[in-house]
Amino acid sequence: MSTKDLFATRTSRMKASEIRELLKLLDQPGIISFAGGIPDPTLFPADEFAAAFQRALAPDSRALALQYSVSEGYLPLREWLVDHMRQIGVECGVENVLITSGSQQALDYLGKLYLSPGDTALVGWPTYLGALAAFNAYEPRFDRLHVNGNQGEPEYAAAAGEGAVKFAYLSPDFANPTGETVDLRGREDLLDLADDLNCAVIEDGAYQALRYNGEPIPPVLALELARKGSIEDCRTVYCGSFSKTLSPGLRVGWVVAAKPVISQLVLMKQAADLHSATINQMAVNDVARACFDTHIPKLRRVYGARRDTMLGALQRHMPDGVEWTRPEGGMFIWVTLPKGVNGADLLEKALETVKVAFVPGQAFFPDATGSNTIRLSFSNSDEDTIREGIRRLGDVLRA
Amino acid sequence: MSTKDLFATRTSRMKASEIRELLKLLDQPGIISFAGGIPDPTLFPADEFAAAFQRALAPDSRALALQYSVSEGYLPLREWLVDHMRQIGVECGVENVLITSGSQQALDYLGKLYLSPGDTALVGWPTYLGALAAFNAYEPRFDRLHVNGNQGEPEYAAAAGEGAVKFAYLSPDFANPTGETVDLRGREDLLDLADDLNCAVIEDGAYQALRYNGEPIPPVLALELARKGSIEDCRTVYCGSFSKTLSPGLRVGWVVAAKPVISQLVLMKQAADLHSATINQMAVNDVARACFDTHIPKLRRVYGARRDTMLGALQRHMPDGVEWTRPEGGMFIWVTLPKGVNGADLLEKALETVKVAFVPGQAFFPDATGSNTIRLSFSNSDEDTIREGIRRLGDVLRA
Repeated sequence: MSTKDLFATRTSRMKASEIRELLKLLDQPGIISFAGGIPDPTLFPADEFAAAFQRALAPDSRALALQYSVSEGYLPLREWLVDHMRQIGVECGVENVLITSGSQQALDYLGKLYLSPGDTALVGWPTYLGALAAFNAYEPRFDRLHVNGNQGEPEYAAAAGEGAVKFAYLSPDFANPTGETVDLRGREDLLDLADDLNCAVIEDGAYQALRYNGEPIPPVLALELARKGSIEDCRTVYCGSFSKTLSPGLRVGWVVAAKPVISQLVLMKQAADLHSATINQMAVNDVARACFDTHIPKLRRVYGARRDTMLGALQRHMPDGVEWTRPEGGMFIWVTLPKGVNGADLLEKALETVKVAFVPGQAFFPDATGSNTIRLSFSNSDEDTIREGIRRLGDVLRA
Repeated sequence: MSTKDLFATRTSRMKASEIRELLKLLDQPGIISFAGGIPDPTLFPADEFAAAFQRALAPDSRALALQYSVSEGYLPLREWLVDHMRQIGVECGVENVLITSGSQQALDYLGKLYLSPGDTALVGWPTYLGALAAFNAYEPRFDRLHVNGNQGEPEYAAAAGEGAVKFAYLSPDFANPTGETVDLRGREDLLDLADDLNCAVIEDGAYQALRYNGEPIPPVLALELARKGSIEDCRTVYCGSFSKTLSPGLRVGWVVAAKPVISQLVLMKQAADLHSATINQMAVNDVARACFDTHIPKLRRVYGARRDTMLGALQRHMPDGVEWTRPEGGMFIWVTLPKGVNGADLLEKALETVKVAFVPGQAFFPDATGSNTIRLSFSNSDEDTIREGIRRLGDVLRA
């Protein structure tokens, strides 16, 4: 094995294994888990998927559904995505859309496309763990991307001169892990910064559709389009996913970008896995056309109520000195514990004494700071469970 | 974009685009295509898949089918694969099996695991184009792996001293593109060579199940196991695929290797796409258990007859000076044209004058030699079409 891979693996192993061990907890009986950032499976449009897979495997389409396909993805789905992107402010053509196996794959390919060892990637501090893992394989250094998070003036650090900045990565709406949203001013400032640094922007829209209150803010790519007039002049690469809206298990996501970027990604995908599963793309296309617009409001109602319940429970049960975010959407609330309280220690104690799970926040920081933070997910627990779990967590924290 | 990616993309672009342009021909009416190495879609066990997807989406399993899953893959499918591998001579446990999105993804991950820029990969000359594309992303140099191909003494070139040899890649049974098989002696010699060079062996078993005549030869991994006693002491990594047997469109393949290799690949997969689609793994598991053993003989009969028909037609219609392989399985016959006849020129002429498509052989050589070779696939044409297409090809060659 090459040195680079030993290195890349070492840096990602600790964090990956933390999450992996945590995911195993979900299967233990009696555990109240706020750990996994996963959708509630009872909300999947499963009847629609059953019908869609049946249609895909009907005599006239089964040969298509089970056969090799093109690397760009299933054309009708890419056409639906062109419409979908237009609805959120992004005018593009099918040639600007690539289907990926979840947006996680897009992050891997974008790391491969942009990063050489020693290059700089700007990321949030904290940021999505899976983005760090995907980029780590290409051995960048990480520098801190300051975004306002709706809390006053944005402040950006230019990267130190140690490695060219290749991109800024962010999830502007209800980010994993903080739940925070970058406001309009923050997005515009980010575009200024990217122009100054001549770097790409990787916009992770995984949670974009899941807004529970407040006005939608245009995607960074939509704002750049408004400035530049054509997607071909944009440096922002938008990564979308059906994982949080229709189903994560089908592994269908997408990338929208200028044609030269898409062309490079298509070649990468062809070399890396040929194409995403044909039948899954057909089924997602079918279900998206049948019920995306009616399904999303349903998710918003259920998840929004769970968010409210968790916020209320935190208010009721957390001792003084504990702070948390108040997300307008997504799946996560980010809790900052009093200084000196360690999130990993708290997890150990919470599991042992009250059977409550969550993710210690440290893993989301490229430099493993943030030891006094934890991430709570409200998406996959009913409201009673949320109330009970937060009550127990409050007990542990006061003990 | 980094220099490495520009480079990697440049080297793979030409070959990728050649194949991509060719694949587009398949859609043209009236074309007889021996180009794509794709299974006949009328042979997919589509009824079985329709039932399997329906079962996966039944009320008691739909939450599992549509939800996130573990990176290692769906356990019951890995258990089936342990049985399957035992039947072809490889004793291993589920912890030695990783599910990938087709064996193409395994090749990408193995490139990422083993190769740093300048390292040497030993490959056939010619070899599978998709392997070259996958490995190229990690900027190796390629050196020639000599295997006997059943034609006398094996002869191996030790790699020149320019870069450490990290692995030897081969598809020992009915390889793409030549259709040739490495005999027992060749496989044993390869294991000696790998021990001498202290490098891995990547065994691509994509066509392993599709033998039409002759006795099966144990996989390289089975032979190494016989030498070393435990898979944990083996350097061979076996890559399997359901693409040629059940369905390519579902993108389900697997890797079998020693636990430390699997652990590294699991971490890579987690960072790169989290996991392969859950429902597809469930469906493949279901269909494999229901009919793999009865389906394979059916494929062998149909494809075997097509191979015989193509060999007969070549005998009848090829002019003197044209030579071809006589594969014992797989999907391909490899044709060597008289010196000075260019395969790409012949394709252009054949398309124009007689509407016959195939793949010029040059793209399968790392150094773009072999301009007087072409690859014919017999898997996706009925026997009449094969006879007619080869007759036409003979006409063009004589003209």
